[in-house]
Amino acid sequence: MKEKYCISTLFLGCLLVQFDSSVFAQDSPWGYRCDGDTSKCIKEEATDPLIQTSFAQCKLTCNPYGVLWPKPTSVSLDDQVVPFLPSNVTSAVVAPPNVASLLDEAIAIFIDNLHKNYPKYSQDMTPRAGPYKSAANNHILHLDITVTNSDDRLSLHTDESYSLALATNGDVSTATIHSPTYFGARHALETLSQFTEYDEPLHALLIITSATIEDSPVFPYRGVLLDTARNFVQITDIERTLDAMSANKLNTFHWHITDTHSFPVYLTSRPEMTHYGAYSSREIYYAREIMHIVEYGRIRGIRVLPEYDAPAHVGNGFQWGPKEGLGDIAVCVNKEPWASYCVEPPCGQLNLANPKMYDVLGEIYSEFVNFFGPIDLFHFGGDEVNLNCWNTTEEIVNWMIENDFGLSEDSYYDQWGVFQARALQLLTTANGDQKVPGILWTSHLTEAGRIEKYLPSDDYIIQIWTEETDPIIGELLDKNYRVIFSNYDHWYLDCGFGAWVGEGNNWCSPYKGWQTVYDNNPIEIASRYSTTFDPALILGGEAALWTEQADGEALDSRLWPRCAALGERLWGNPAHNWVLAESRFIHHRQRMVRRGIQADRIQPQWCHQNEGLCYA
Amino acid sequence: MKEKYCISTLFLGCLLVQFDSSVFAQDSPWGYRCDGDTSKCIKEEATDPLIQTSFAQCKLTCNPYGVLWPKPTSVSLDDQVVPFLPSNVTSAVVAPPNVASLLDEAIAIFIDNLHKNYPKYSQDMTPRAGPYKSAANNHILHLDITVTNSDDRLSLHTDESYSLALATNGDVSTATIHSPTYFGARHALETLSQFTEYDEPLHALLIITSATIEDSPVFPYRGVLLDTARNFVQITDIERTLDAMSANKLNTFHWHITDTHSFPVYLTSRPEMTHYGAYSSREIYYAREIMHIVEYGRIRGIRVLPEYDAPAHVGNGFQWGPKEGLGDIAVCVNKEPWASYCVEPPCGQLNLANPKMYDVLGEIYSEFVNFFGPIDLFHFGGDEVNLNCWNTTEEIVNWMIENDFGLSEDSYYDQWGVFQARALQLLTTANGDQKVPGILWTSHLTEAGRIEKYLPSDDYIIQIWTEETDPIIGELLDKNYRVIFSNYDHWYLDCGFGAWVGEGNNWCSPYKGWQTVYDNNPIEIASRYSTTFDPALILGGEAALWTEQADGEALDSRLWPRCAALGERLWGNPAHNWVLAESRFIHHRQRMVRRGIQADRIQPQWCHQNEGLCYA
Repeated sequence: MKEKYCISTLFLGCLLVQFDSSVFAQDSPWGYRCDGDTSKCIKEEATDPLIQTSFAQCKLTCNPYGVLWPKPTSVSLDDQVVPFLPSNVTSAVVAPPNVASLLDEAIAIFIDNLHKNYPKYSQDMTPRAGPYKSAANNHILHLDITVTNSDDRLSLHTDESYSLALATNGDVSTATIHSPTYFGARHALETLSQFTEYDEPLHALLIITSATIEDSPVFPYRGVLLDTARNFVQITDIERTLDAMSANKLNTFHWHITDTHSFPVYLTSRPEMTHYGAYSSREIYYAREIMHIVEYGRIRGIRVLPEYDAPAHVGNGFQWGPKEGLGDIAVCVNKEPWASYCVEPPCGQLNLANPKMYDVLGEIYSEFVNFFGPIDLFHFGGDEVNLNCWNTTEEIVNWMIENDFGLSEDSYYDQWGVFQARALQLLTTANGDQKVPGILWTSHLTEAGRIEKYLPSDDYIIQIWTEETDPIIGELLDKNYRVIFSNYDHWYLDCGFGAWVGEGNNWCSPYKGWQTVYDNNPIEIASRYSTTFDPALILGGEAALWTEQADGEALDSRLWPRCAALGERLWGNPAHNWVLAESRFIHHRQRMVRRGIQADRIQPQWCHQNEGLCYA
Repeated sequence: MKEKYCISTLFLGCLLVQFDSSVFAQDSPWGYRCDGDTSKCIKEEATDPLIQTSFAQCKLTCNPYGVLWPKPTSVSLDDQVVPFLPSNVTSAVVAPPNVASLLDEAIAIFIDNLHKNYPKYSQDMTPRAGPYKSAANNHILHLDITVTNSDDRLSLHTDESYSLALATNGDVSTATIHSPTYFGARHALETLSQFTEYDEPLHALLIITSATIEDSPVFPYRGVLLDTARNFVQITDIERTLDAMSANKLNTFHWHITDTHSFPVYLTSRPEMTHYGAYSSREIYYAREIMHIVEYGRIRGIRVLPEYDAPAHVGNGFQWGPKEGLGDIAVCVNKEPWASYCVEPPCGQLNLANPKMYDVLGEIYSEFVNFFGPIDLFHFGGDEVNLNCWNTTEEIVNWMIENDFGLSEDSYYDQWGVFQARALQLLTTANGDQKVPGILWTSHLTEAGRIEKYLPSDDYIIQIWTEETDPIIGELLDKNYRVIFSNYDHWYLDCGFGAWVGEGNNWCSPYKGWQTVYDNNPIEIASRYSTTFDPALILGGEAALWTEQADGEALDSRLWPRCAALGERLWGNPAHNWVLAESRFIHHRQRMVRRGIQADRIQPQWCHQNEGLCYA
């Protein structure tokens, strides 16, 4: 074990004779010491620069959780490291054939992520000259992966757990991964990639020599919402978002793909929708692109969840209706003054009075199921219906009167309820008569007195977007509704910027810092309102980026690293707040940047190098 | 003139016979009509899609200011357009040789910007088939540029004015540019580039056929501050920032290059500074890189202004002092608890008691002058001195006592004053005995009673960073100090994000939206506090990006397009507020994105396509 000892204490004496003074002159005088009491890496001037511990080595081994993000359920890490190169990875897979081929892709991504640990200006991966150059060149990282189950699509019941054991024997480190499913094994590879760091003095990767992990998520639904209708987002930007999500074990990309503003989805059955509704001919998602994103997500352990928001949040794209003899599919489209007919410009709602509207809705669902399927969930949207729009549209008012529905608020809620029931039925038909749970935003329809009437708890999951102080949280749980948290006071990522109508700051200001994102504990919030709820009703949570003021350009800055904070909250739901997570979080942000994600800086780099000294 | 008529009303009939239905099927049914009363482009379904006006044509010609940003002093634009290609630009220059060679570079940038008007996915610049394909192919844009003066470096007295006359005769549009200096001519080319837009239906550029512009800036100092010490920013990111500044006629890149956190400037005379003070060996600016940035800026009409902040905001990098027998150059470096010794971690101030400190300061100035010179201004920093740091440092306390300076607050201010006088002297020596105006931040030293004592108004320009409600504004002007506005309540671009020490939001929240940036009128603010000030004392203004929470990744998102709002404010200081600028601003943001700047979206694209309908 002499060799291993020497390698793993690389900067504690073994290299003394190897560096000449000219090399030393380029090196940093700073080293790092792991403080056993605080588990922090302390930057200090080495009495002899050659016997210092490097930043990478200290970070990998000092904290009991290393630099793992999100924090696994159970972790044991060695404090020794060995150098290796990303080119020296081998693997053996035991899994059903469909899973084995997915694992091939996951392993390729893993190796790519190892390469990305190097500083971006480094093309040359030859280790620095010295006695450990050959050690690094010769060391093998072997992956031994076993998956038992052939499931290759996520559902709310997928077992995403895994175990990961890493052991080093001579020139070989073996990572043994066991998981019931592909999804757990993929998570294991992500964790394993976080056992590695680029080491500046050696110009090679370091990996912890041994570790044991048992891990599984607390919540089955861990999502990020992206709105691509207020502003269009390119496919490459969505791919990058999925890359970043997979680094945080987030598993649901909620694609709010259409809205009143634009309809960017090319429908084979209704090309008129993009002809009238896309912002331009270059701002359209075609079937092959959506299917590519669905597959891209699946490989990365991510469900791509479609939302077709209705009956409000529709409008542009439907202008062809009257011309083709179908009448108005949508009403109040771009109607002025907008504040009378919707919550933000432009307005638009589906035309309840037009039976042809349901034909078109069925066509849309049908194509969505085709693009995104097989689906295990569907998002119906369903918030912010403006009754005044319907009640000032002559065709609808006449229809309400002719059918003896009345014109009261309740009458309109009744018809909204009828609409939703029809929508569920149409979706089920489009999905080959397979009913899947539908998700709906909290709205006037989910309030007490209405929800029981219109929305069976077996059929619907409710996504809560109001504040953590909204008593509806307790009501929903007490009525046995499954819920997803997206309370805007913590998880709306568009908040805090300038207003986009008028001046001042936008409606949900202030900006939600990562600490605010991290500290939003769904179980703790729910416990304030209900003492009897079944925790299994809380499926998880989701951060939302509504894109009135974002597109692909600032996408990463809005999402990251704040969604990483979400990732740890939803994976492990830690009992502690952000303070104990800060040091790993700061480090994880740097990792994401190396992987090509333009995540925001959280602190000066001095704070990263001087752990714990940037306190309030 | 028949031909011109047909070209310039391209979508009013001439092309009818050219498009077949399959081409039409891919086209948008939407066209634009210029509303004469409001000068807004109204999106509407064309009764016949072939006789619609395109978005580009309407935008170029509908508003009296077209899509020009910043708004020129005097503008007259034709409402006709012709198609052309970026490859068909010719030029003739009459200028002194040094200016002519700068103009060659400016013309190359101009042509490059024309190329960037095309959507980024377009490599092929062949115009769409049709009768105007050959018109576009054959049309020449000729630049006829005359510059009289040989000045090739900016100063506060540089005449940046220009005149630009565009006229079209047959196949040739000639842009005649006259300017006293290179800098005016460069601005003219930027304005000219904004007479052009990519036209979707034709897949070619359009240019206005004739125009007359007389233009000059209201303020001679129009700056953006970037801090590269709290976090390092790559040279390529700085280049991109200069590109973006030049698109907005901003003329000063204020490089806050060092601070307590890090010292990233490689000094030939003191390599120890980066050895101890750089974040890593890859996060260092070398002489050749700084000189490259200075030249890159000069070509783009931008002064690269160095700041060496002292006597506070120093620290890391000076740790070598005692080892090399010079004693402590800086004191309180990284001292804890930080809140007792500085405004943010880490702490550090120059050691007033150590005469060797001045030797080192002289070396630093000398290298800075070498890197950045010839300089016409220098920024001494000079804010946020913490007297308690000095007054708790034994060496300094003893020195104060030994020299009978006393230990009162006033005694320390006296010594700070002595320091500043020495600093000015050292800089002047380093600059070959040429004194240049020094800029200082507002601080306790610039308060009434001290400023007159320590800071002669001939020697110093004061940069105001406190709020617009600070009465010091009137005091400074009444005492005849030249000032630069950077009041944080409007022009600090780091505000509004999460806290970086502790939780909640950062100190200067909320976020300053572009409207807030735009509406900060220095003359109007000054007039509230002084009725007798000389407007020429107001040199201009500057937006600041302090980088506790930013580096190259989110740089563009923080700066742009908000600094474009600053650009128009400082160029023309318009009497109106943001409302009248909004439509051009939204369009200009899109232009910046085409040029590779990751500027934030301000509104949904629907608002860009439906001018004026996203109102509060």
